[in-house]
Amino acid sequence: LAHRLDGIPPTIFSTMSALAIRTGALNLGQGFPDVDGPASTIARAGEALRSGANQYAPGIGVPALREAIARHQQRHYGISLDPDREVVVTTGCTEAVAAALLGLVDPGDEIIVLEPYYDSYVAMIQMSGGIRRPVTLRAPDFRLDVAALRAAVTPATRFVLLNSPHNPTGTVLTREELAAVAQVAVEHDLVVITDEVYEHLVYDHHEHVPIATLPGMRERTLTLSSVGKSYSFTGWKVGWATGPAALVGAVLAAKQWLTFTSGSPLQPAVAQALDEEPDFPRRLAADLQSRRDLLCEGLADAGLPVRPPAGTYFASTDITHLGWPDGLSFCEALPERAGVVAIPAQVFYDDQDAGRQLVRWAFCKERDTITDGVRRLAAAE
Amino acid sequence: LAHRLDGIPPTIFSTMSALAIRTGALNLGQGFPDVDGPASTIARAGEALRSGANQYAPGIGVPALREAIARHQQRHYGISLDPDREVVVTTGCTEAVAAALLGLVDPGDEIIVLEPYYDSYVAMIQMSGGIRRPVTLRAPDFRLDVAALRAAVTPATRFVLLNSPHNPTGTVLTREELAAVAQVAVEHDLVVITDEVYEHLVYDHHEHVPIATLPGMRERTLTLSSVGKSYSFTGWKVGWATGPAALVGAVLAAKQWLTFTSGSPLQPAVAQALDEEPDFPRRLAADLQSRRDLLCEGLADAGLPVRPPAGTYFASTDITHLGWPDGLSFCEALPERAGVVAIPAQVFYDDQDAGRQLVRWAFCKERDTITDGVRRLAAAE
Ligand SMILES: CSCCC(=O)C(=O)O
Ligand SMILES: CSCCC(=O)C(=O)O
Repeated sequence: LAHRLDGIPPTIFSTMSALAIRTGALNLGQGFPDVDGPASTIARAGEALRSGANQYAPGIGVPALREAIARHQQRHYGISLDPDREVVVTTGCTEAVAAALLGLVDPGDEIIVLEPYYDSYVAMIQMSGGIRRPVTLRAPDFRLDVAALRAAVTPATRFVLLNSPHNPTGTVLTREELAAVAQVAVEHDLVVITDEVYEHLVYDHHEHVPIATLPGMRERTLTLSSVGKSYSFTGWKVGWATGPAALVGAVLAAKQWLTFTSGSPLQPAVAQALDEEPDFPRRLAADLQSRRDLLCEGLADAGLPVRPPAGTYFASTDITHLGWPDGLSFCEALPERAGVVAIPAQVFYDDQDAGRQLVRWAFCKERDTITDGVRRLAAAE
Repeated sequence: LAHRLDGIPPTIFSTMSALAIRTGALNLGQGFPDVDGPASTIARAGEALRSGANQYAPGIGVPALREAIARHQQRHYGISLDPDREVVVTTGCTEAVAAALLGLVDPGDEIIVLEPYYDSYVAMIQMSGGIRRPVTLRAPDFRLDVAALRAAVTPATRFVLLNSPHNPTGTVLTREELAAVAQVAVEHDLVVITDEVYEHLVYDHHEHVPIATLPGMRERTLTLSSVGKSYSFTGWKVGWATGPAALVGAVLAAKQWLTFTSGSPLQPAVAQALDEEPDFPRRLAADLQSRRDLLCEGLADAGLPVRPPAGTYFASTDITHLGWPDGLSFCEALPERAGVVAIPAQVFYDDQDAGRQLVRWAFCKERDTITDGVRRLAAAE
């Protein structure tokens, strides 16, 4: 194994989903829905397959999809994009993250990243030779500590890698918090790479604000998203990066060598979803909100009280009072004890003590699955 | 742009296909067919879409596909593989190359590679910090120079990155040539990474011999291939790496962060193709052979004599006698002059002088397109 992978374990999502399959436990771990997105979108993919969209799409993505992505950004956020220079299609947001870091980061560059972090960030920052500077969202409310953010900046800082709505905590950064990030970015001439895959999955009165819309940010923000979460097609792995041509060009420069292109018959269907099913994400969010409440109430009844998250697919509980040494041992025993799989959030911390007692549960599953899951937890020893 | 991409231009395939679209020229450049693979495979993908194969596949690939890949290697080559440890599904062979190099190569490691080389090799070797040691297949017959191979080995050599059938020359390495590579690999304890995407596209009496089948090679060979060329679905970008668990594990270790997974609804269809359409690639090769002949005869008639390649989609011609300074200027002018796009093979050489006059033509297109293309070439000034 090459040294750039030293100390990087297999992704926890693969490990825990494999455990769910092996034990037959309910999978409240990895974030994917068990009901697919719009039937019209599936039909469009079928048409694309039958009508010959089966050869290489352009590396940058098919024009219809790039145009639909530009329209999406215009419609929702008032952001204007040139689909030929400011939009690139990727193999899900994962590839967008990988290509952004490989395309932009030089060894020694420092990258500020929210902790707990999504695990691919850590791996790809290490693989790009960058240095991670975590800013911790602290329990119990997981807000941004602006003083900690400012303190994390050094002369070597070049990037902020942001994700809001934030996985795994469910925090949605407020306009004020984002303005503080923007101010730091402008002051120190940083590029912000923002993973907004949960952009449409926000609840109650919360609002997703793309940081690219804040003053001075358009020209220094690379925005990443995908069809996976917004349209319940996580397995299609069609994502995108948008922003100034120089930043999008860097993603394309790296990505052309990682996969060249992907999903030719799926790309026209994603364009259809964005253009012709514009209300799907909102309906999905409304439905997810009620499933979030079902999960949170069920967890509370099972002795695992939780504050309902403002966005994403996930709720996290502190298990300190249950007497387990940590969330990892709790999660490793859970399939056997309760027939349920969850994610130990401690693996998303540099200092694993900080998240030692935090366990993440997914509520993107059917109501019956959630009800069954919390019933099993309540019944477990 | 990060320094790891210094001096790496956009892939010639994107550049030339964009030129074809812009000028409306016939695209005899990028290697993709204009007729899709088996209808039954397209139907299977449609079923997978409708029956819910739309969420994350496991990062390693769906079990049915890994098992089908193992059966394919057994049936064609007598290679036995454990589908759970010795097979990983990738986003086309491009991702398999990227993940193999990022997963295995440390900065300073030397990698022997055939020249002219496929362009992603150069980019990914540079991105992995490896050092490329080309062994040139010299015109006019493009055979392996075993003395040059031996001379390329140094104490820092750790890998041979091989491709046979060889793109762009169409050379199929003989069993004797491969045995020489194997001997060098065993003698110097090298790992061989072999890109065999054209494994089924060999013509006349030529035979594809996977280097993994040679004595002592099973344990040191990582074999890469894909559905793209064998089954005429280049846009599906479903590929794989097979070999010893340690090498396959290195691919997975890197790949999980590049894309995590991809093409969930396409993976079951690729399994169907491998299992239920086993004769498709042979029929395709027979048909391609006749199109190869059509192209080569037409090129000769147009004043561009060519020796018919033993494998791949491509024939290359030497244009020295036409008086152009080089193949690049010839290819840049060709859409305007003749309404045809071709690939200047000189970009696949370190020493661009060596391939200065070489132009590559694809014959994976319909007979009418080939006929039209050579007619246009004959008519051009
Ligand atoms: C790419 S697998 C992880 C899915 C996901 O976003 C999560 O569970 O956090
Ligand atoms: C990945 S685009 C290049 C296709 C191809 O293999 C070729 O034209 O050589």
